[in-house]
Amino acid sequence: MKSFMDKDFLLSTPTARALFEKANEMPIFDWHCHLSPKEIYENKQPEDIAQLWLAGDHYKWRAMRSFGIDEEYITGSKSNHEKFLAWAKVIQYCIGNPLYHWTHLELQRYFGIYETLSEDTAEDIWNRANAMIKAGGFTPKELIKKSGVNFVCTTDDAADTLEYHALIAQDSSFPCKVIPAFRPDKALNIDAPGYCDWVAALEKTSGMKVSSYSQLTAALLSRIDFFGKMGCRATDHAFTYVPYKRASYSDLETIFEKRMKGTALSVGEADAYRTELFRFFAKEYASRGWGMEIHIGAMRNNNTRMFEKLGPDTGYDSIDDREAAQNLSKLLNSLEYEGALPKTILFTLNPKDNYVLGSMLGNFQSSEAASKIQFGSAWWFNDNIDGMREQMKALGNLGILPKFVGMVTDSRSFLSYPRHEYFRRILCELIGNTVEEGLYPDDRKTLEKIVCDISYNNAVEYFGVK
Amino acid sequence: MKSFMDKDFLLSTPTARALFEKANEMPIFDWHCHLSPKEIYENKQPEDIAQLWLAGDHYKWRAMRSFGIDEEYITGSKSNHEKFLAWAKVIQYCIGNPLYHWTHLELQRYFGIYETLSEDTAEDIWNRANAMIKAGGFTPKELIKKSGVNFVCTTDDAADTLEYHALIAQDSSFPCKVIPAFRPDKALNIDAPGYCDWVAALEKTSGMKVSSYSQLTAALLSRIDFFGKMGCRATDHAFTYVPYKRASYSDLETIFEKRMKGTALSVGEADAYRTELFRFFAKEYASRGWGMEIHIGAMRNNNTRMFEKLGPDTGYDSIDDREAAQNLSKLLNSLEYEGALPKTILFTLNPKDNYVLGSMLGNFQSSEAASKIQFGSAWWFNDNIDGMREQMKALGNLGILPKFVGMVTDSRSFLSYPRHEYFRRILCELIGNTVEEGLYPDDRKTLEKIVCDISYNNAVEYFGVK
Amino acid sequence: MKSFMDKDFLLSTPTARALFEKANEMPIFDWHCHLSPKEIYENKQPEDIAQLWLAGDHYKWRAMRSFGIDEEYITGSKSNHEKFLAWAKVIQYCIGNPLYHWTHLELQRYFGIYETLSEDTAEDIWNRANAMIKAGGFTPKELIKKSGVNFVCTTDDAADTLEYHALIAQDSSFPCKVIPAFRPDKALNIDAPGYCDWVAALEKTSGMKVSSYSQLTAALLSRIDFFGKMGCRATDHAFTYVPYKRASYSDLETIFEKRMKGTALSVGEADAYRTELFRFFAKEYASRGWGMEIHIGAMRNNNTRMFEKLGPDTGYDSIDDREAAQNLSKLLNSLEYEGALPKTILFTLNPKDNYVLGSMLGNFQSSEAASKIQFGSAWWFNDNIDGMREQMKALGNLGILPKFVGMVTDSRSFLSYPRHEYFRRILCELIGNTVEEGLYPDDRKTLEKIVCDISYNNAVEYFGVK
Repeated sequence: MKSFMDKDFLLSTPTARALFEKANEMPIFDWHCHLSPKEIYENKQPEDIAQLWLAGDHYKWRAMRSFGIDEEYITGSKSNHEKFLAWAKVIQYCIGNPLYHWTHLELQRYFGIYETLSEDTAEDIWNRANAMIKAGGFTPKELIKKSGVNFVCTTDDAADTLEYHALIAQDSSFPCKVIPAFRPDKALNIDAPGYCDWVAALEKTSGMKVSSYSQLTAALLSRIDFFGKMGCRATDHAFTYVPYKRASYSDLETIFEKRMKGTALSVGEADAYRTELFRFFAKEYASRGWGMEIHIGAMRNNNTRMFEKLGPDTGYDSIDDREAAQNLSKLLNSLEYEGALPKTILFTLNPKDNYVLGSMLGNFQSSEAASKIQFGSAWWFNDNIDGMREQMKALGNLGILPKFVGMVTDSRSFLSYPRHEYFRRILCELIGNTVEEGLYPDDRKTLEKIVCDISYNNAVEYFGVK
Repeated sequence: MKSFMDKDFLLSTPTARALFEKANEMPIFDWHCHLSPKEIYENKQPEDIAQLWLAGDHYKWRAMRSFGIDEEYITGSKSNHEKFLAWAKVIQYCIGNPLYHWTHLELQRYFGIYETLSEDTAEDIWNRANAMIKAGGFTPKELIKKSGVNFVCTTDDAADTLEYHALIAQDSSFPCKVIPAFRPDKALNIDAPGYCDWVAALEKTSGMKVSSYSQLTAALLSRIDFFGKMGCRATDHAFTYVPYKRASYSDLETIFEKRMKGTALSVGEADAYRTELFRFFAKEYASRGWGMEIHIGAMRNNNTRMFEKLGPDTGYDSIDDREAAQNLSKLLNSLEYEGALPKTILFTLNPKDNYVLGSMLGNFQSSEAASKIQFGSAWWFNDNIDGMREQMKALGNLGILPKFVGMVTDSRSFLSYPRHEYFRRILCELIGNTVEEGLYPDDRKTLEKIVCDISYNNAVEYFGVK
Repeated sequence: MKSFMDKDFLLSTPTARALFEKANEMPIFDWHCHLSPKEIYENKQPEDIAQLWLAGDHYKWRAMRSFGIDEEYITGSKSNHEKFLAWAKVIQYCIGNPLYHWTHLELQRYFGIYETLSEDTAEDIWNRANAMIKAGGFTPKELIKKSGVNFVCTTDDAADTLEYHALIAQDSSFPCKVIPAFRPDKALNIDAPGYCDWVAALEKTSGMKVSSYSQLTAALLSRIDFFGKMGCRATDHAFTYVPYKRASYSDLETIFEKRMKGTALSVGEADAYRTELFRFFAKEYASRGWGMEIHIGAMRNNNTRMFEKLGPDTGYDSIDDREAAQNLSKLLNSLEYEGALPKTILFTLNPKDNYVLGSMLGNFQSSEAASKIQFGSAWWFNDNIDGMREQMKALGNLGILPKFVGMVTDSRSFLSYPRHEYFRRILCELIGNTVEEGLYPDDRKTLEKIVCDISYNNAVEYFGVK
């Protein structure tokens, strides 16, 4: 029996262990996350481990609800201590869930606690962890620094001022670059209730009038330029399903006008707007050499009762299953045909599409970049041992795994960097097994290059950060 | 090499073997099956092993057809002996098929026969098994008792009189509770040819006139009440695809009237009826604390020629692949929003939807029950080693595996209880491997609780049987 | 650590190794490939290894593009030597990709080269391989003979003259039968740009006038008869998605007429034509006992810019994801109901449909043939270790694996026969593990029969070649 989560965690062969020693030395480039630049800038001392773990983590909230914990102990009025005890009761039964490993990696790496968290140990761990937090070293910047992170891309709305990015950049003692990533979902979601408010916000940030589609794109272009000045190299787009409906400029003007007047749009109109505005964005990214992320398949806010109570991103999202291949192909092709397809990273939330996306890549590769079109790492509900293995095996079968840009935390938590370690262990185990089973030669130099490139170098080169 | 199907069958580690010892001691609660209450009540001596195995098992029929056996030896006029010999010829080649293991588990557990069935051994096994059957102990009640079954939920039409349940309950010497489960598929399938006949049957059983939608729901309500009096705790619904089309009460009256007059309904009308009647049912279940099963994705009666010859449930069904996420989310949300979502168990026949359903659960959990929304065990075409592993791994990754309500036979056969043993072995192997690989601590007490809960306790608590 | 690709490649147990010794002795029946009968007949000496490997292999082209190689080195004007060096650089990083194994199997089996190909060894391997090619033994016929191939089915358009098949048959010294397979995709794709030109070609080959749908089917019938005279036993059909739309004969006349006049057809019209013409073909196959292959899910020519430059089959295809179950069921049922369903082999390019197709088979089996309806081997993007395992495991769970008609190269290359060896190793490893894990008895005679039947005998019997 292997020991529980010791130094050889997830590494079952000598080759895997040797490769992980190298991969583990690499710094971190976390090119997609949901950290708050404001929180990084303010760099506040956390109150206790409950605040660090439970204040905003909808993964943990879902697990607690699945166990049958009352909402009062999740997002309700119970004390941090009570919430922590409830969580300890739940985590004990998270066998087979990545939360179990994330939780214990965080306890081990940041707190030096090697006991497992359960009802029995909860009180003791609560006390020890909180004592350490009080002793210092747990502010956002300290955690980022301690985790060996060189670059972070936050996820920022097109109407965001990026003021905190500017402030963070002034702190020359902080070794990590915090770079904005352009995420214009609110611009694309013309059928969302808050669209007109968002247009007003864009007017304010850009200082430009936005009363027509052409003014909208002009204002967005000014934001893209500003993001560029702030060091942006990555962009992000979430599609529940991939739209593809072409429209003329004058159609788009009409659709925009209709929406601003409060007239309901048809699905076709919203899709046409989304398609063409997305194409507008993509061309701008292509001309700047930015990497474009597309996240497909999140079906959000499924529980209206709880949405009205708690708002979005509170643990009520799941996986959509609509067809993706035809529209995605047409959308990318329409850009490729105009010589305007940017570097693109395709993520799917539905693992049934691993082979659809993994084979789509090959349709649009070119010598502009090594694996210009990438298959994004296993994401959200797939961010677990099985999901990561399946994504990497699909990529290996269909493309060139050694050119993969690797892992992101996709997280809101400053304690989540061990997910990179988790990924690297799974990567090294996979590569190690391939060699141990005689399926690839034991060429150590090439193997070390592969795991180090996937862990860090590929992303640095792909996004061109410095 | 491990011995063929010995005591360590499917158990490759010491942890798995130790856990199975505990799991194997648990009684059985078979909360979804297709046993005939009439057959249980009548408790007849079976004729021979061919009758026990081949009289109604469409799994075996499909295998025989796939091998190329003539229909005469399957559902035709050949003798039981000839059919058995044909089956023996086929089973020998069922490598990789769960039928191979089911067959030999049944030979081992009920007949003490440890040889493998093949053309060579067929005659001998035929003679020995039939001698044992003649010697007694093979009636339905004897088999159920011998198998350690505490509770069985049969699957009963809303218009069923449940007379045999009442008769079985009178036999105080029979230690197993045989409980009806409410399955109103015939009520929901308004576009099926036999709908009007079914309405007539409902009128007869309920003693109520059903000439309008409101009378229909009144009659169904009286049946729900009657099922409740008979101990019902579980209900079942089969959807080839999930409908979601809302309609007003007056629309429903019109649709019902149209159908009763023999006018063809549009797909939209049938879907609206199905959606709203299903919602009616769900609310009634919620108020009674019943568990609601939804089985999605069976595409039935694909071979019209054989359907005309043999009728339904004769081996001509397969897996549908329509989108499920959007409609399922809306349907459950519409109930949740009204505070009327019952405990729900989602089954999919299409393994591509494992992650769609597994992540859907989390949208609607609450403290009403531990894992109020459940991901049903691998079903029918997935009821095999791979399918069970994949379902449990998905549930582990996405939810709280230790709260899983576990296995059901879904069977028409009184010999099928070893499928619970089969499941428990696979469960213990999975949990055992997790521990042996260092992915979960070797906390034997918790581990034993987990496998025993999944094997039996969770279902008892979830359905509230006593 | 297992040695890299030695004699026990992919075989981890004694049982697997023993079974492979038997399977490896079987000849090859490659019943689906894209070899050129003209090239076989002309039997030319290849120029060098770059011509053999890189002149037409879009798998390798995709890998090179994914690595970031410039198109000049792929399909462009660079020399064969330069292209080979570029390929060597790429293959070194194809860890996890079947190309890595195919490449080294071909180097080992045809060139006796056991070093691995990489940037470092490229020049040396270029020289040694080319010296061997010059020394002889590398013409199409020599390679086929050397590979132990008894039968090859090429893939031939309905308007093809089959002249080269006739010429090849005259060479009595060539031990391999090269049989045409009837692939009327151009007849079915009425909405393709070249349809009218194809009709003209059909007129020419058949010597019949084709100015109506009835004349079209008459001409096609004459081609089917001619293919039959030339030994045809297999047919092939590619559907991006499965159509099912019934139409009357007079509708079909109208649709055909419309198309010949250059009027655009609706999707419904094209689908109706495809459905009914396909049904016409299927009935003819059924009456002749031919095997009908259906390949579902290839989405072709996704990159218009490159299509205009290079044409089809140049590496710009990927996997479609449309629903298949309903239409496929109806299409097969419509034939079955008329007693006119031929032996049918269902292939899916989308692995999400493995269980849909694998369970569909069972709806239409009969005693006409052992596993009359077959689940085709893992194809194209699935033609790798994972894909082959998953396809065989699905077939094992759902059908009778020992009746599987096994592997095809699906290749344009005369060096691709080691893919049968690759498949046989994976098959024997799978069967071997089943036995070693105690899931099937160690009945060596039956096991040897199973692997030899799947490797060769089943296909010979299924297609009835002699």
